[in-house]
Amino acid sequence: MDRRSLFGVGGLSLLCTLGGHRIAADGDEADLAKLARDIPDPPGLRRARFEQVAQTQPAVGGVVREHWIQAEPVRWTIVPTRRDEMMDERVRGRTTFRALCYREYTAGWAAPLGPGQVPGPLIKAEVGDTIVVNFRNKGPAPVTVHPHGVFYTSDMDGSYKGKYTDSGGFVKPGQRFRYVWDCREGTEGVWPYHDHGPLDPLPLYKGLFGAIHVRPRGQRENDVDHYIFFHSFIPAATGLGRIFHCINGRAYAGNTQTLRARVGQRVGQHVIGMNNDFHTYHLHGHRWRDPSGRMVDNVTVGPADAYSLEFVEDNPGRWFYHCHVFSHLHDGMTGWYLVEG
Amino acid sequence: MDRRSLFGVGGLSLLCTLGGHRIAADGDEADLAKLARDIPDPPGLRRARFEQVAQTQPAVGGVVREHWIQAEPVRWTIVPTRRDEMMDERVRGRTTFRALCYREYTAGWAAPLGPGQVPGPLIKAEVGDTIVVNFRNKGPAPVTVHPHGVFYTSDMDGSYKGKYTDSGGFVKPGQRFRYVWDCREGTEGVWPYHDHGPLDPLPLYKGLFGAIHVRPRGQRENDVDHYIFFHSFIPAATGLGRIFHCINGRAYAGNTQTLRARVGQRVGQHVIGMNNDFHTYHLHGHRWRDPSGRMVDNVTVGPADAYSLEFVEDNPGRWFYHCHVFSHLHDGMTGWYLVEG
Amino acid sequence: MDRRSLFGVGGLSLLCTLGGHRIAADGDEADLAKLARDIPDPPGLRRARFEQVAQTQPAVGGVVREHWIQAEPVRWTIVPTRRDEMMDERVRGRTTFRALCYREYTAGWAAPLGPGQVPGPLIKAEVGDTIVVNFRNKGPAPVTVHPHGVFYTSDMDGSYKGKYTDSGGFVKPGQRFRYVWDCREGTEGVWPYHDHGPLDPLPLYKGLFGAIHVRPRGQRENDVDHYIFFHSFIPAATGLGRIFHCINGRAYAGNTQTLRARVGQRVGQHVIGMNNDFHTYHLHGHRWRDPSGRMVDNVTVGPADAYSLEFVEDNPGRWFYHCHVFSHLHDGMTGWYLVEG
Repeated sequence: MDRRSLFGVGGLSLLCTLGGHRIAADGDEADLAKLARDIPDPPGLRRARFEQVAQTQPAVGGVVREHWIQAEPVRWTIVPTRRDEMMDERVRGRTTFRALCYREYTAGWAAPLGPGQVPGPLIKAEVGDTIVVNFRNKGPAPVTVHPHGVFYTSDMDGSYKGKYTDSGGFVKPGQRFRYVWDCREGTEGVWPYHDHGPLDPLPLYKGLFGAIHVRPRGQRENDVDHYIFFHSFIPAATGLGRIFHCINGRAYAGNTQTLRARVGQRVGQHVIGMNNDFHTYHLHGHRWRDPSGRMVDNVTVGPADAYSLEFVEDNPGRWFYHCHVFSHLHDGMTGWYLVEG
Repeated sequence: MDRRSLFGVGGLSLLCTLGGHRIAADGDEADLAKLARDIPDPPGLRRARFEQVAQTQPAVGGVVREHWIQAEPVRWTIVPTRRDEMMDERVRGRTTFRALCYREYTAGWAAPLGPGQVPGPLIKAEVGDTIVVNFRNKGPAPVTVHPHGVFYTSDMDGSYKGKYTDSGGFVKPGQRFRYVWDCREGTEGVWPYHDHGPLDPLPLYKGLFGAIHVRPRGQRENDVDHYIFFHSFIPAATGLGRIFHCINGRAYAGNTQTLRARVGQRVGQHVIGMNNDFHTYHLHGHRWRDPSGRMVDNVTVGPADAYSLEFVEDNPGRWFYHCHVFSHLHDGMTGWYLVEG
Repeated sequence: MDRRSLFGVGGLSLLCTLGGHRIAADGDEADLAKLARDIPDPPGLRRARFEQVAQTQPAVGGVVREHWIQAEPVRWTIVPTRRDEMMDERVRGRTTFRALCYREYTAGWAAPLGPGQVPGPLIKAEVGDTIVVNFRNKGPAPVTVHPHGVFYTSDMDGSYKGKYTDSGGFVKPGQRFRYVWDCREGTEGVWPYHDHGPLDPLPLYKGLFGAIHVRPRGQRENDVDHYIFFHSFIPAATGLGRIFHCINGRAYAGNTQTLRARVGQRVGQHVIGMNNDFHTYHLHGHRWRDPSGRMVDNVTVGPADAYSLEFVEDNPGRWFYHCHVFSHLHDGMTGWYLVEG
């Protein structure tokens, strides 16, 4: 497959920029290792010992939020029920493949905290805190953790930058890196984190993304928060025969996360675009005040955009939340929102 | 045509999710009936008698806005003049097909209030009012009326939900349903309504959509309000040989609605995306303050997004209003705005 | 090439609406002349003598900002270094073609002010000023200058309008036109200008666009302002074998403009979409308050949208600024932002 042809018609294949030579990328995990084989170590890479990374002191009153996260393969099923509950019909064909995920562990990666998931663990903090992500790569190729929104020095960026790459932008299989990010004033919000390594965007398309939520210091939490990634699993990343337009790793109502709330609760929803497409978020039976002051029930969310909304629940019943791009909706980008009276 | 192949390259065909079997959808109206043939009645469908639907009482000071609307076929011509006035050239080929429309009638569907149109009738209300849409389906397949923005209980949602479908989400040919929607505080704005039945999005792509405008109670109306749907007529919905990027059912300046105003008037424009594409709305010779406070003259409008703008007219002349996506503009998504001095 | 087929899959070709007959458009400059051959002069065209154009008096305290601009061909190289510094790899194939540019001259077009560039010259003004663009067309086909955002009467619109076209909407090779635009209250902002003539959008896709920046009267300027056009050079406009997703006329980090600032400076960035695609703007290591009040680091920018952001620089290092649509990023839509401590 040619480097220029990977993103094909309708996003059915995936661009992967890797030298001028032709590469094969049919979605099998082994490909990542093969693709990585020809990438030289960046010349200026400093291999600081993991333990030596300076740790930013949190602001007065803040705390250190330490996570132990590992990138690793996971056998993942996109449509576990094999049914589309919106259309009450069967979803045919294979939907299981070897994904990549960020998986949370106890300190020192001693034991996993639950199964590997797409998306990765939610990282929560308050303004003034410091986030420390102790990261280990147990995947087949170099990957990273690139955060949005929080403050980080350029060596904590988690981005591959060719010959200017820092250690955190090129974490090879078996290696570790300690990312330290500062939640200073002005970083409040919900943000994505994702791989931004030398094989970008292939590992991300296999599942390497998650959310960071930085709340203003001392602010009361919502009663319920929903984190909604609009993304896709495409043949070049899965080896499956078709595209799936997904929410949080799954496709079709009854498989995607069923969101829940009760009347009277304050509900926050946080929608993040995490593929090559533009989306609109629509929630049936509800509307909310946009940050600009208007009432809306449908908003545009582009690649890596993060959009947060809040409302007090007042409408019991069974509702759809979905992308209003019709072809995304009908290829799986929808789910149930169940409200108890 | 396979269920997965209906949305083709450039939106030239249309996805229609209907069981795992192959279906033909070349845009002929008969297809809808054929497609509907295999859809079973939802198991839990309650067939409440039309007359028994409880009617929400409007708030103190509010009124009931009752409409009698029928879904029906209409012979529709996309380019009546057969000319593109922007380029001063002929538009070749057929542009007439059998569309579907929401048509307004007098009480009891006794007599039509004018011809069938795309988009359907404008539904106007003030905060505190109740909207009642007495709906009858005289089309070839089950359709519904799904509103955005207003408040409705989940049985008034007008959405097909597989085995969870309520009566209002599956109105078969010849049947009626009474939708009751509440314009409570927080529903002010301009919103689309559209089919969301078991054949979604095919009936919508044939013309089943319209606008609701809920104004704050007692607020002075604009001197002029323009409602602008950006949508498309695609081969799978029309049987015609090409796509038309349309405004309010028509394509190309001189065919699309010619908007009008006079200097000194307060003008409201309400732009709604109603297809699979993202658009930007641009108006020549004018600019306006965005809800966020900035001056803009060009804004993104995604599928089912509704964007309202206002300005006091100060610039006489002949202007274009158009989608600034170049390929949409040149396939018809433009019109004249004529301002008298 | 058929008029309807010019915008092909993935934007690789370009729509050009020119009568019902078939046209060839392989990107060679000669094509424009050929395409223009069959366009008749608009019937109502008034050929006002250049010198007779009435000049709006600026408001009290305002000034006339006069520019002498010429549309002309320029030999343009999209990837001068022939390297992609993000991926540290070679960019193969030809990247040089005959573009079109708006080039600034001294009064009377006596001498060029530097080489021809894509984008064209930045036009700066304050509220209350009048902008005068003395325009001469030395390209191969009729082109115009259509501004966004500023106030202009309909004869100063620079748009081809079929039989309603004014002189400023059809400036033939060798002809001149004086555009006079009014920066009255409410025109503050950054706006694109671009060709909107009878061959739209082909000349724009060859490079005919630039920016206008109208600042509030007397407002202190930012220490640094960056103007960032997201656009593309496509085969139908270049004759080259592939698409390049570009920033300010160039593709790939190290070729696109390297933005610079120092810690402590107030930085303004102004992002404008100038092709058929939707984009998101992302800047590593930074975030800013959106006009709606939220902190963001990634925003959607559609065709002809203009988005301005500001922040005080606080983060030294080597950063990427890029479009977060992955396929655009990997086809060149990225650059370096270097911040000195």
